[in-house]
Amino acid sequence: MDRQRELIIGKLVEAVGDTSRVLTEVHDLFSYSFDASFGVYKPDFVCQPMATIEVVEIVKLAGQYELPIVARGTGTSLSGGPLPVKGGIVLDFSLWNTKLEIDPDNLVAIVSPGVITANINAKAGDFGLMYPPDPSSAHVSTIGGNLAENAGGPRGLKYGVTKDYVLGLEVVTAQGKVIRTGGKTVKNVTGYDLTKLIVGSEGTLGIITEATLRLIPKPMATKTAMVLFDEIVDSGRAISKVLRSGIMPSKMEIMDRHSIIAVEEYASLGLPTDVEAILLIELDGHPLALEDEMEIVSDACMAVNARRVQVAKNDQEAEQLWQARKLVSPAIVKIKPTKISEDATVPRSKIPEMFQRLKEIREKYNIHLVVFGHAGDGNLHPNIIADQRDEKEMRRVEQAVEEIFEAAVSLGGTLSGEHGIGLMKSPFMEMELGTDGLHMMKLIKEAWDPQNILNPGKIFPESGQRFELRND
Amino acid sequence: MDRQRELIIGKLVEAVGDTSRVLTEVHDLFSYSFDASFGVYKPDFVCQPMATIEVVEIVKLAGQYELPIVARGTGTSLSGGPLPVKGGIVLDFSLWNTKLEIDPDNLVAIVSPGVITANINAKAGDFGLMYPPDPSSAHVSTIGGNLAENAGGPRGLKYGVTKDYVLGLEVVTAQGKVIRTGGKTVKNVTGYDLTKLIVGSEGTLGIITEATLRLIPKPMATKTAMVLFDEIVDSGRAISKVLRSGIMPSKMEIMDRHSIIAVEEYASLGLPTDVEAILLIELDGHPLALEDEMEIVSDACMAVNARRVQVAKNDQEAEQLWQARKLVSPAIVKIKPTKISEDATVPRSKIPEMFQRLKEIREKYNIHLVVFGHAGDGNLHPNIIADQRDEKEMRRVEQAVEEIFEAAVSLGGTLSGEHGIGLMKSPFMEMELGTDGLHMMKLIKEAWDPQNILNPGKIFPESGQRFELRND
Repeated sequence: MDRQRELIIGKLVEAVGDTSRVLTEVHDLFSYSFDASFGVYKPDFVCQPMATIEVVEIVKLAGQYELPIVARGTGTSLSGGPLPVKGGIVLDFSLWNTKLEIDPDNLVAIVSPGVITANINAKAGDFGLMYPPDPSSAHVSTIGGNLAENAGGPRGLKYGVTKDYVLGLEVVTAQGKVIRTGGKTVKNVTGYDLTKLIVGSEGTLGIITEATLRLIPKPMATKTAMVLFDEIVDSGRAISKVLRSGIMPSKMEIMDRHSIIAVEEYASLGLPTDVEAILLIELDGHPLALEDEMEIVSDACMAVNARRVQVAKNDQEAEQLWQARKLVSPAIVKIKPTKISEDATVPRSKIPEMFQRLKEIREKYNIHLVVFGHAGDGNLHPNIIADQRDEKEMRRVEQAVEEIFEAAVSLGGTLSGEHGIGLMKSPFMEMELGTDGLHMMKLIKEAWDPQNILNPGKIFPESGQRFELRND
Repeated sequence: MDRQRELIIGKLVEAVGDTSRVLTEVHDLFSYSFDASFGVYKPDFVCQPMATIEVVEIVKLAGQYELPIVARGTGTSLSGGPLPVKGGIVLDFSLWNTKLEIDPDNLVAIVSPGVITANINAKAGDFGLMYPPDPSSAHVSTIGGNLAENAGGPRGLKYGVTKDYVLGLEVVTAQGKVIRTGGKTVKNVTGYDLTKLIVGSEGTLGIITEATLRLIPKPMATKTAMVLFDEIVDSGRAISKVLRSGIMPSKMEIMDRHSIIAVEEYASLGLPTDVEAILLIELDGHPLALEDEMEIVSDACMAVNARRVQVAKNDQEAEQLWQARKLVSPAIVKIKPTKISEDATVPRSKIPEMFQRLKEIREKYNIHLVVFGHAGDGNLHPNIIADQRDEKEMRRVEQAVEEIFEAAVSLGGTLSGEHGIGLMKSPFMEMELGTDGLHMMKLIKEAWDPQNILNPGKIFPESGQRFELRND
């Protein structure tokens, strides 16, 4: 072990005051070299901070030695956010799950970065409150990661995304200063909105050590319907029709025929495999209103040629309907082992056109492409199923993914609705933002982190960088 | 007229292609030297752009001659946002009200900066949609000003503020580049959130030339109640009680006894002048739900010692109840001519304590202080009524306002909930943000506008700057 490495390890141990929370063995480092996306990048050191002051000391050390510093929760990122692509120090926040305070009078939760997201909503529920953001990883991902990536979820349609529920942050800057942004009030226009700048900045502008989250009253009841469509285009028309009828469902999820077939082969739920699409619609609110609103939703769907609307009679039946949606991910990886999950998002009126484009891409590249996701807000999840050992197939997949991005942007949409840019999508940033838009973002990064120690190699494309799906 | 002035006027006329939209006479310049706050600052030039390319040319000219450039709507700012404190060019956007497109399938509106805010909601209503932000100036203020200041309003309690309804912007940077931020999708995590950084930045980071706004389905019905309290502290407890009962009212406005008396003396509505506070509560949603929810609200209020809950039987009665709230501002300026309207905001659980502090400040400085506003989200409006010709009184008012800010910040609140920092509150920024927090904001300003031509003298305190309420 070289002298400098030894020195840094000594200082890291000093910073956290606990040798067990500084990991430096090769097998430990390997555990932190990947996430739920692609690529393997070994960090030089791993620390598990459990206090802001520890983070401050580590960041100062990183600055002193010009070491990259990458925050990480439980590594569920689909875009490479926590990958230490330039080595350096990984800050594993998963142990720092010690603070989860609900302040019911102010409708806020105060949390440390390692808290599992679903636990926030669960604890809020004890007070009749709700934390709406519900990424499908909510039961395993940390709030710190959700904040870094501005995670979404099905409820985004009605309730918005993580950013919409962050009132304030404690952040350690690249200079090792602790700043507090925002506060406990919903209204705050004192200076620039650093809170919403830092949420979604993927660890490149600062390290979040605490968050004050906004909670809302929990809806009294929910009601679910499954709607079957012979033509997928009609399912897109149904979305607009429902939203224009004055009703904002809490969820509107789509499954295309390929998803339905995969789920049926996996679990035999009795889904109709001869339809082109299913919409799962959940309404929430007052039980008296839901009865009436569900009728309006049914009428709207039938008016655009739905084959049938099946309304769940009770919560148990609703749960069964949602089971189909939940099983899509496990079902499709039975087909082939490598799943490339995209989140290109289009204005909702462009959903029918996006479906057409995806169909063309599927055929052009001869790939296994299934489409499901949050149709109500245009945030589809085209998933490609492949086998990464098949080099030729993977190259076709790469081309297909590029075309998916191009299709989304050309339809007025965005590269990423909720997974983040991370490593994977940075080569496409300029396509969406233009040179000048990207330049304005870089100016902020350079002003705040002139040494480029905070999660370097992310978001901004590096010279000659190409889109690749490789694990070698 | 000196040569350089002549030269600049010539170039401004060239930029807008229309002499009638370049104003340079003294009486014209005077019209643009004040807003609804304090102070008189004459610009050197006024332009009335009606296209992005015109703004680009003017900004480039400003950069070339190092002239300040200040965007302005209809000048309703309560914090000095559009005051040209360093002279230079005022961009009057009030003529550029030409674009107001509703895209009902995507639930968005696309607007030019000079559109009157209330017109957006009115036109959205034709499609069964709503644009929720409702500052009390909505019928006269422009969306451009609302965006610059991140305007709020009563509906902020349930629906949030202007920022929560902005999906995308077209912005001219200090370098005269046109960037497009965000887009037409609710979910977008492609890079830093420049949209939410620029909204509320008070014209200091860029000039907004177009906005894409999010609309929502218009609620089917509303229901209003007036609740009377013998003790103002109980009205604060009622707010928490209602919100914890699982109901999120669309509005929860408070009037203290001083406001009530002022309105009664002004309009004789028959309000009870012996109560300490009135809460006006509006629920919105499905009519069937509202009946039941209003009972829950009533029970919650009665449980914390409300004297009486008066529920409006129909929309006309509701309108009458709201009349009282609407008349507060016109009523209080009958008492004395100078109104200082503050918007210090506290976490809602601190409302009773804030009332106590305000009472102490009223007595300590012997000032006429009335309190009303958006109690549900802690965004009170302490208004001081004075006569600016009375020098001594005005100095007491200045001290009182300083103490109001200190009280709000010490209770975990903020200097400004919805009016902005502008010129008036910049001396207090460091008190709330700390040196490091303010420094991070300055870094962004310096990186984006190194010449400091965009609305200079705003937000950031200048050396030796003090809080003053003067018009000379």
